[in-house]
Amino acid sequence: MATHTFRPSVYHNTFAAHAPVLEVAPGDVVRTSTVDARGRGATGERECEPGNPLTGPFRVRGAEPGDAVSVRILELTPNRRDGWASHRLAPVTLEPDFVADLEPAGEASARTWRIDVAAGRVEPDEPVPGLAGLALPLAPMLGCIGVAPARGQAISTATSGEHGGNMDYRGVAPGATVYLPVLVPGALVFVGDGHAVQGAGELAGTGVETSMDVTVEMGLVKGSSIRWPRGEDAAHLFTLGNARPLDQAAQHAVTEMVRWLTHEHGLSFEAASVLVGQAADLEVGNMFDPAYTVVCRLAKDLLPRR
Amino acid sequence: MATHTFRPSVYHNTFAAHAPVLEVAPGDVVRTSTVDARGRGATGERECEPGNPLTGPFRVRGAEPGDAVSVRILELTPNRRDGWASHRLAPVTLEPDFVADLEPAGEASARTWRIDVAAGRVEPDEPVPGLAGLALPLAPMLGCIGVAPARGQAISTATSGEHGGNMDYRGVAPGATVYLPVLVPGALVFVGDGHAVQGAGELAGTGVETSMDVTVEMGLVKGSSIRWPRGEDAAHLFTLGNARPLDQAAQHAVTEMVRWLTHEHGLSFEAASVLVGQAADLEVGNMFDPAYTVVCRLAKDLLPRR
Amino acid sequence: MATHTFRPSVYHNTFAAHAPVLEVAPGDVVRTSTVDARGRGATGERECEPGNPLTGPFRVRGAEPGDAVSVRILELTPNRRDGWASHRLAPVTLEPDFVADLEPAGEASARTWRIDVAAGRVEPDEPVPGLAGLALPLAPMLGCIGVAPARGQAISTATSGEHGGNMDYRGVAPGATVYLPVLVPGALVFVGDGHAVQGAGELAGTGVETSMDVTVEMGLVKGSSIRWPRGEDAAHLFTLGNARPLDQAAQHAVTEMVRWLTHEHGLSFEAASVLVGQAADLEVGNMFDPAYTVVCRLAKDLLPRR
Amino acid sequence: MATHTFRPSVYHNTFAAHAPVLEVAPGDVVRTSTVDARGRGATGERECEPGNPLTGPFRVRGAEPGDAVSVRILELTPNRRDGWASHRLAPVTLEPDFVADLEPAGEASARTWRIDVAAGRVEPDEPVPGLAGLALPLAPMLGCIGVAPARGQAISTATSGEHGGNMDYRGVAPGATVYLPVLVPGALVFVGDGHAVQGAGELAGTGVETSMDVTVEMGLVKGSSIRWPRGEDAAHLFTLGNARPLDQAAQHAVTEMVRWLTHEHGLSFEAASVLVGQAADLEVGNMFDPAYTVVCRLAKDLLPRR
Repeated sequence: MATHTFRPSVYHNTFAAHAPVLEVAPGDVVRTSTVDARGRGATGERECEPGNPLTGPFRVRGAEPGDAVSVRILELTPNRRDGWASHRLAPVTLEPDFVADLEPAGEASARTWRIDVAAGRVEPDEPVPGLAGLALPLAPMLGCIGVAPARGQAISTATSGEHGGNMDYRGVAPGATVYLPVLVPGALVFVGDGHAVQGAGELAGTGVETSMDVTVEMGLVKGSSIRWPRGEDAAHLFTLGNARPLDQAAQHAVTEMVRWLTHEHGLSFEAASVLVGQAADLEVGNMFDPAYTVVCRLAKDLLPRR
Repeated sequence: MATHTFRPSVYHNTFAAHAPVLEVAPGDVVRTSTVDARGRGATGERECEPGNPLTGPFRVRGAEPGDAVSVRILELTPNRRDGWASHRLAPVTLEPDFVADLEPAGEASARTWRIDVAAGRVEPDEPVPGLAGLALPLAPMLGCIGVAPARGQAISTATSGEHGGNMDYRGVAPGATVYLPVLVPGALVFVGDGHAVQGAGELAGTGVETSMDVTVEMGLVKGSSIRWPRGEDAAHLFTLGNARPLDQAAQHAVTEMVRWLTHEHGLSFEAASVLVGQAADLEVGNMFDPAYTVVCRLAKDLLPRR
Repeated sequence: MATHTFRPSVYHNTFAAHAPVLEVAPGDVVRTSTVDARGRGATGERECEPGNPLTGPFRVRGAEPGDAVSVRILELTPNRRDGWASHRLAPVTLEPDFVADLEPAGEASARTWRIDVAAGRVEPDEPVPGLAGLALPLAPMLGCIGVAPARGQAISTATSGEHGGNMDYRGVAPGATVYLPVLVPGALVFVGDGHAVQGAGELAGTGVETSMDVTVEMGLVKGSSIRWPRGEDAAHLFTLGNARPLDQAAQHAVTEMVRWLTHEHGLSFEAASVLVGQAADLEVGNMFDPAYTVVCRLAKDLLPRR
Repeated sequence: MATHTFRPSVYHNTFAAHAPVLEVAPGDVVRTSTVDARGRGATGERECEPGNPLTGPFRVRGAEPGDAVSVRILELTPNRRDGWASHRLAPVTLEPDFVADLEPAGEASARTWRIDVAAGRVEPDEPVPGLAGLALPLAPMLGCIGVAPARGQAISTATSGEHGGNMDYRGVAPGATVYLPVLVPGALVFVGDGHAVQGAGELAGTGVETSMDVTVEMGLVKGSSIRWPRGEDAAHLFTLGNARPLDQAAQHAVTEMVRWLTHEHGLSFEAASVLVGQAADLEVGNMFDPAYTVVCRLAKDLLPRR
């Protein structure tokens, strides 16, 4: 179980079979960093093209299509003292007639936020009128996590799909393990687009965007029924569906939970239906990106002991 | 502040301007009961036509269009020892190709569940293969809560809209206060369709359906910007949008939260955007009924002191 | 086969089991009139409350739940020389970011159009800058056609469903026969909301709204598989699905066409799939109303001779 | 105005900045051929990997981002005597409960169709029970037409977007000119996935899939407001939106028509609204592919003379 430290010098704006920057064995730990959605890193300097530039890809030894790779998030810490966020809910998240009655915003402009890791606080740099003193608890997450897609595709880091991608789910956070389908040999894992905090749905179109120090443990599950991203944390299993509308994203998430429960946990469709029907959570990950994300979550203590 | 005890003898399958069964003053408490979605009450006998029959309507003195009525749920307790639930996820919640590959279910049949109020447990009457010993914590909720709609409409208790209705949101539970727009004089409040427990989304098409003893406190807010149902509990404000697809339901919920924050809490659109964008929850209430329900939730401690 | 002339004195803003204004036998012809969406009739005076007030209901002798009623549109002629229309595409029909960049319209105001029945022309009363000389061919249609819904519902004439309603499909026009499911004894047929012309989708939120002289022939089909409105004209069968999003409306329309082809025309699912898959049209009726309408259309000459 | 004859030897399964096979000048004509969706060409032999393999890309001299390229379809003729089609409507096009009641289809299998170019007929090779004698008029179309996307993306030929792609619109046919946004220098135009005939919506998931001889005339429009694919034929302008749900696809198509009318035809938003609102067609291109396609169409004779 090696620990690798990787300082990125190139970044990618697509999930694709780019040349791996590092090969790791299952169980290895990678310490690295990510730039923010506009390509600015720890120093605040732009290091690359904007648009969710990604760190990676990391090649996982032995990963073949039909397997799943896992990415356990051991640490995720903003590595500079500021971030930025939109202060305007995105038009697509509001009633069309309400949007029509708003004055045009003119040039969309991001506002600066201060990030105090030691105090665990995130707050607007200039007070928002009416919200003097507002500070949110630091809750770092990765907006982008995914693998290279199949069949030679190069998918923009603006969007998401079966390969993961820009899912903007705030549960992709320290303590969570994300599982992704292996679609090319070596899987080729990418991470990026850290947020110091973000509401469900990413309704303003951004979280508090910043650069991050990231430590992840890579794993490999040989032979998996996985079709869509899965995850778990201390208390829950969760599945992520990425599509528009939210309905379809939810169908993928619910179906993937059923797939997981029936294939890997040995339940019947009836048993899976009972657990999901009477006990699951169903939350919006994002409803801003080209593909939306819905998350189906189930408490692990409901699963039969094995 | 009177306390009324009302034992229903008729039930309604529409939200409409039916003759009120009781007139209450703001602040009054009503103790009553609801039958289950098929019309069976505390004795297990059918008391009326199936299809979410409702108790009420309760007329709120002084309520006029332009106001909001509030319904605080003081108590909600199953009043018999059994309920029933579907053991099969609804086709609309699953990927179409997955549904196409399932064997037809034949006649949909509900299964019986046991409800132990004292122990706070809900469990299948016959063990589900693979889930031996499964018991869920009792978590009673009202599937239906709403008022008479405007313009002479009589809206089926299968669905929901601006008037509330069959929203099947598990947060309509003891400790919550639901606010509804007044659309006809007296508001005419209905309740029904209790579930002993239900997962988010009501993905199987039912919760554990049973009859309930219900105690609510009625209130009146004169002059309100309310357009869609709102609610609050100890820690959160929440708003409910009812529509298909989930996207539109979410747009209503998010817009209503903005409306609430700007009209009643005095925030600017920018301030509301910051709170909702970086701190709101966005959960699926139901994705089974003719109108889906999405809930936008915000922690009260983020609101400026007034 | 009697011909009835009915001059309405009351109008309805809901599809509901209102007292019939006339009972007709299958085969009878009814000559009547409709007011425009704001309740103005042939004289231009307001005769009733606005909001798609309807003429009817007409009771069809012998119609029972499980049957279909048919309404053949023999004549549909504007009975005054003006109508009105919105000159602004509805926000819901445009990209949200495009809407956000538009200046707010302020008070929506309808513009007057001139209707020349003899010349078959419809044109803006005041020239639209840049469209001098614009005249559209007169193409009268009924925005609303439907029956009383089941289970005591009273459904707003703003929306549509299995009972028909405000479908705003421009194919509901002279020469077409519309079939509707009978949901209450006598069916109770309503008509209204005439448009002198309208684009597909009713994208501006109105057609050229005016009052009409209407002549229809009522029919009855005993025992029918009908679930959603159907229609036919000289060359085509068509089915109408009403829901949001358009996807669901389309699913209803396609499924209803399959139902029609398999139940009434004796085809297998495979044969219906071949015809619909390789030869159907799929058009948007409206994408403005609370329920959207999608129309699936099939050339009659593809059907096997019987 | 040169005429190039290009016989493809490699095909692509992504729209991407692949090495151009030919550079053409605006006004040049290209005679080439396409294989069917499974990679079979005129001989019936498989020539490449299945999954909508494309012919091209053709580099258009002088095309730069911000321009539009045009592809005028001069000829499109099946070059073999058979094709294939699914005989089963796709689950996503039907009501979920209807799908749940169908017996699983088992292995999806395509059926062979005969194509008689001289007679202009397309018919199942083995009669479909109940449809003896069925023959459809030959109506060749290109399922795939598009350009290389921006920012290094390689987008699967299964789907579509702003770059065009697998739109499966039956109006991409002889006589039509398709306009596409130039996203990389030279545009890089691809064509493929010919259908001998197809219903609107591609509701069975295929047309009658076959290989084609294709002759197109390439053009270039320097400086264009184009954002989504546009087209025109003898009588109509049309715009194509590609997204899910159909609602969003329609919003793109309607907005693009407004963009075209206001930027290139000099109309105001009001004038564009009048034409689109009262006179446009709105048709489903496909509702099967990962992105659906909706087409907004407007008669050219309504446009002001310039």
